[in-house]
Amino acid sequence: MNISPLTDLSRLCIHTITTKPWKIEQAAENYSTAGVKGITVWRDALTGRDVKKIGDMLRNQGLNIVSLCRGGFFPSTDKNKRIASIEDNRRAIGEAYNLGTSLIVLVCGSDPGQALETSREQIFDGISSLLPEAEAAGVRLAIEPLHPMYADTRSAINTIEQANEMAEKLDSDFVGVAVDVYHLWWDPLLEKGIQRCGANGNLLAFHICDWKSPTTDMLNDRGLMGEGCIPLRKIRSWVEATGFNGFIEVEIFSNEYWKLDQAIFLEKVISAYKKYA
Amino acid sequence: MNISPLTDLSRLCIHTITTKPWKIEQAAENYSTAGVKGITVWRDALTGRDVKKIGDMLRNQGLNIVSLCRGGFFPSTDKNKRIASIEDNRRAIGEAYNLGTSLIVLVCGSDPGQALETSREQIFDGISSLLPEAEAAGVRLAIEPLHPMYADTRSAINTIEQANEMAEKLDSDFVGVAVDVYHLWWDPLLEKGIQRCGANGNLLAFHICDWKSPTTDMLNDRGLMGEGCIPLRKIRSWVEATGFNGFIEVEIFSNEYWKLDQAIFLEKVISAYKKYA
Repeated sequence: MNISPLTDLSRLCIHTITTKPWKIEQAAENYSTAGVKGITVWRDALTGRDVKKIGDMLRNQGLNIVSLCRGGFFPSTDKNKRIASIEDNRRAIGEAYNLGTSLIVLVCGSDPGQALETSREQIFDGISSLLPEAEAAGVRLAIEPLHPMYADTRSAINTIEQANEMAEKLDSDFVGVAVDVYHLWWDPLLEKGIQRCGANGNLLAFHICDWKSPTTDMLNDRGLMGEGCIPLRKIRSWVEATGFNGFIEVEIFSNEYWKLDQAIFLEKVISAYKKYA
Repeated sequence: MNISPLTDLSRLCIHTITTKPWKIEQAAENYSTAGVKGITVWRDALTGRDVKKIGDMLRNQGLNIVSLCRGGFFPSTDKNKRIASIEDNRRAIGEAYNLGTSLIVLVCGSDPGQALETSREQIFDGISSLLPEAEAAGVRLAIEPLHPMYADTRSAINTIEQANEMAEKLDSDFVGVAVDVYHLWWDPLLEKGIQRCGANGNLLAFHICDWKSPTTDMLNDRGLMGEGCIPLRKIRSWVEATGFNGFIEVEIFSNEYWKLDQAIFLEKVISAYKKYA
């Protein structure tokens, strides 16, 4: 592993959910002032807003709109819910187009009332049915494998190899994979999976944070980079060895950090990014 | 999948921790009265007791002593802790011998202060150093792969394939694998891993419970069989296809169920075993 620290912020992207207490307008202004160059927009941040105007506002702040989070949640034992999910994903593609981003991250979903294999078939079918719209809008869809602790309800795709297989089977320039260290760090096959992902042109996004010991909440206790046990530099070296030189996205859900003054938290994010990412 | 329900209790084993509020004497009497045929003893249940006498008491209740839980926790950044861990595992082998069981389940451990690969090397070294004592005592050691959500502190072995590899590398008749559905159900390679485990003579134990949606505690919110999304019968069919016909061990950690009258909870365990295991 031969990798340098990130001495400037040219590749730093922050997810709006990382600073959830801020409205998107505040987030944009504060990220921009701090020198952050990328933003990933969570759909809840767009509620009640004109999406095109938000896109312009973000660009006027000098921010690259790296992706829209999140589409997905395709599986259900209820056919009507599966149909509703496709419609919602179509709306997401429209939002991404209007926002001016070329990527949507998919949290693919899972239904504990059916086999994981069935959920995976429904994920495949769901993404397939979206491909014409995605292609027309110029929006790619990134399958994000989620940690196995979310296999019951959030994603039936829990390893990078499963995401690779799904992306390869869908075989479209508009489908790829999002690599998030929080979900994948433990996997003994991760390096191999990242190599395969990159070799197939499927590595579309790279998300970082850290795994705290102890982790007190299964969803909202992610750590700042350096605070936990994830070998961040090692994983980044694998990602970059594929040729990936895109944004490095900080995505932290944390009840603890959301309680802080978000300006102070943003300073911590930037400092941790330079020191540990 | 072609598998029959378990209509009698001849293969039912319960872990003492499942009914944690009961002392081992109460657990033994109540399991026996209910017709349960196996018990796995957690070491905390032996505190302050003569282990040989407990072994006799359990056998007098008609219980097979399926295993002792648990050894392991080999890795540490601190060499003295690693040495202390080996000593503790030697004590566990002595306890298993005195209790009269031929199996110890290993929760192998992990230290968030070092790479998973380093923890795995220390696990290998730790088990290796115990093999002479294990062999002399006629006690086998079962590597239990733990869910990836425990990779930081509880086990650096998180898939059945990793456990298989470790067991095969140790290459001893006194080392094998414990399959626990809670840890492994999500793994797309599980069936293959169980086949390999069985083919190599390494499938030493089978633990069941269920994964609740939502799961509210990362450690102590396991479900009764049938309460969650684990395909229990399917996994049992894979286990039994290898020729395994040993005990089916109910291991439930649950703050919720430990609050119940344990006699009522035991009835629920038996009913769920017959209906869903």
